[in-house]
Amino acid sequence: MTLRVGIDVGGTKALGVAIDDAGVVVAEDRRATPRGDESLDALLDTLVELARSLGVDGSLGIGVPGLVTRDGVLRAAPNLDGVADLEVGRLLGERLGHAVSVDNDATCATVAEWQLGAAVGAENMVLVTLGTGIGGGLVANGAVQRGANGFAGEFGHMVVHPDGPRCPCGRRGCWERYASGSGLAMLAREAATGGRLRAVVEHAGGDPQNVRGEHVQAAALDGDGDAIAVIDDFGRWVALGLSNLTNALDPEMFVLGGGLAAGAELYLEPIVRWYGELLYQPHLRPLPRIEFARWGPLAGAVGAALLPGFG
Amino acid sequence: MTLRVGIDVGGTKALGVAIDDAGVVVAEDRRATPRGDESLDALLDTLVELARSLGVDGSLGIGVPGLVTRDGVLRAAPNLDGVADLEVGRLLGERLGHAVSVDNDATCATVAEWQLGAAVGAENMVLVTLGTGIGGGLVANGAVQRGANGFAGEFGHMVVHPDGPRCPCGRRGCWERYASGSGLAMLAREAATGGRLRAVVEHAGGDPQNVRGEHVQAAALDGDGDAIAVIDDFGRWVALGLSNLTNALDPEMFVLGGGLAAGAELYLEPIVRWYGELLYQPHLRPLPRIEFARWGPLAGAVGAALLPGFG
Repeated sequence: MTLRVGIDVGGTKALGVAIDDAGVVVAEDRRATPRGDESLDALLDTLVELARSLGVDGSLGIGVPGLVTRDGVLRAAPNLDGVADLEVGRLLGERLGHAVSVDNDATCATVAEWQLGAAVGAENMVLVTLGTGIGGGLVANGAVQRGANGFAGEFGHMVVHPDGPRCPCGRRGCWERYASGSGLAMLAREAATGGRLRAVVEHAGGDPQNVRGEHVQAAALDGDGDAIAVIDDFGRWVALGLSNLTNALDPEMFVLGGGLAAGAELYLEPIVRWYGELLYQPHLRPLPRIEFARWGPLAGAVGAALLPGFG
Repeated sequence: MTLRVGIDVGGTKALGVAIDDAGVVVAEDRRATPRGDESLDALLDTLVELARSLGVDGSLGIGVPGLVTRDGVLRAAPNLDGVADLEVGRLLGERLGHAVSVDNDATCATVAEWQLGAAVGAENMVLVTLGTGIGGGLVANGAVQRGANGFAGEFGHMVVHPDGPRCPCGRRGCWERYASGSGLAMLAREAATGGRLRAVVEHAGGDPQNVRGEHVQAAALDGDGDAIAVIDDFGRWVALGLSNLTNALDPEMFVLGGGLAAGAELYLEPIVRWYGELLYQPHLRPLPRIEFARWGPLAGAVGAALLPGFG
């Protein structure tokens, strides 16, 4: 039996899985991601150690949060301090004695959901990760599309409001300013400044400036109307971007992953409803399906495990 | 020698070409597009007559302005009154006695520029037509991408400003409200209301409400600073959408077609400059090339001629 090991390297933790020939996760493990002034060697050593703990035996894939070239070099990773132009595949391969595949973490999640998850059999699908920011990946005409440099699917930095809030990337009104976990928190803080959103502010310890997405989610689950209204607004922003992507790519389905997938039952209804409102020529096509990722927080690691030998 | 005939059906005229095996245009002809309460039969008869005048002999492709399904049905065409769910390929095929290929006009232009024009050899490219509205097409991983329903490339209705001007499609702030010929005119009318833009308004006969894109273009060619500033603003809106498409698709080049291609020398510099400003992580990749279409107004017809037998 072949064992495939995949590791999803996040800003705080590296999550690894081993999957068998049937696509079943037979082992799972994690390590804290070395950060800050710790050396790149510490990062690489941690990944090797994690892979070995999962029984790596010739097949390893790595998902990393950042721009990855088509030959597996991590060019930049805002959430991994100090990492730039890291030949992570080559360096890990030297340590392990076999080839290591590397791709963007959202591309890995796309592979997982397309091969073994919510989008099995789709010829044209788009995956969007709603986390602290927004990442993504796409399948068109039955193939994962990576673009000329490997940077396709960076949906979070599509500008949807040129006068909108400043984004750390330097521009204004990027989609992820509104439609990510950070975006949900911003929409809530804006709504809270007028004295509204009391239940949410209470969940945040009384200070509107401390409001995060999880506080909105908690209040909405309690049935608080103000929190539900913020989630409705959030759903409209998510749907706006999905509608834009539909115009460009005409997928048959969207899969939504990332941290917010944990609150799928709250978000799906407003997203689907607003998407129906915002879609161009909705009467002329079957409405693309919108579903949350089946693999949840494991999607990146599972997809990484599937990378070796994958187009 | 095989002769391939292609016809680009526009709102006012149908433009046909015949090309030889070497891709050389050996004949060109046009007819007024039957409109209004004239019957669909008149449209089909006109297309058959035009194809025959070009020597059609078994190979005909048609480009139409609207949403075309993957099996060649024109679902809707805002610029062809009353046309909906027209099986244009089948109906023309019956009249001519051989198969007829049909696709969206911007997809045809994409095929022309990719096979025989500015984007020969590109594995990942995006074509954007800047006309009255905005259309487009895309090549990813060496294949023309049409999406699940054949509707991919409808870039004009990507929302770039949710509080922006109302679009005939029913939403607000679609990209084509700003970055098309209509958009250029709107930006100019907005600038003219404060008493500025005198030279442009003169070109428009003295009434700011009559200002069209061609008046801005004429004044800018005369060196008028106000007109040049409007074109700079227009270039920023074009670049904003190209930057968004880069994040989604990571193409190696953009080809700009449509009616505004006639003023390429005015538009290219501001578009390229703003694109460099707006691009995400520009230092991490070779800047995608931006060029105007080589085939100019013939692109749709040439691409239509290439459709039969084309993936």
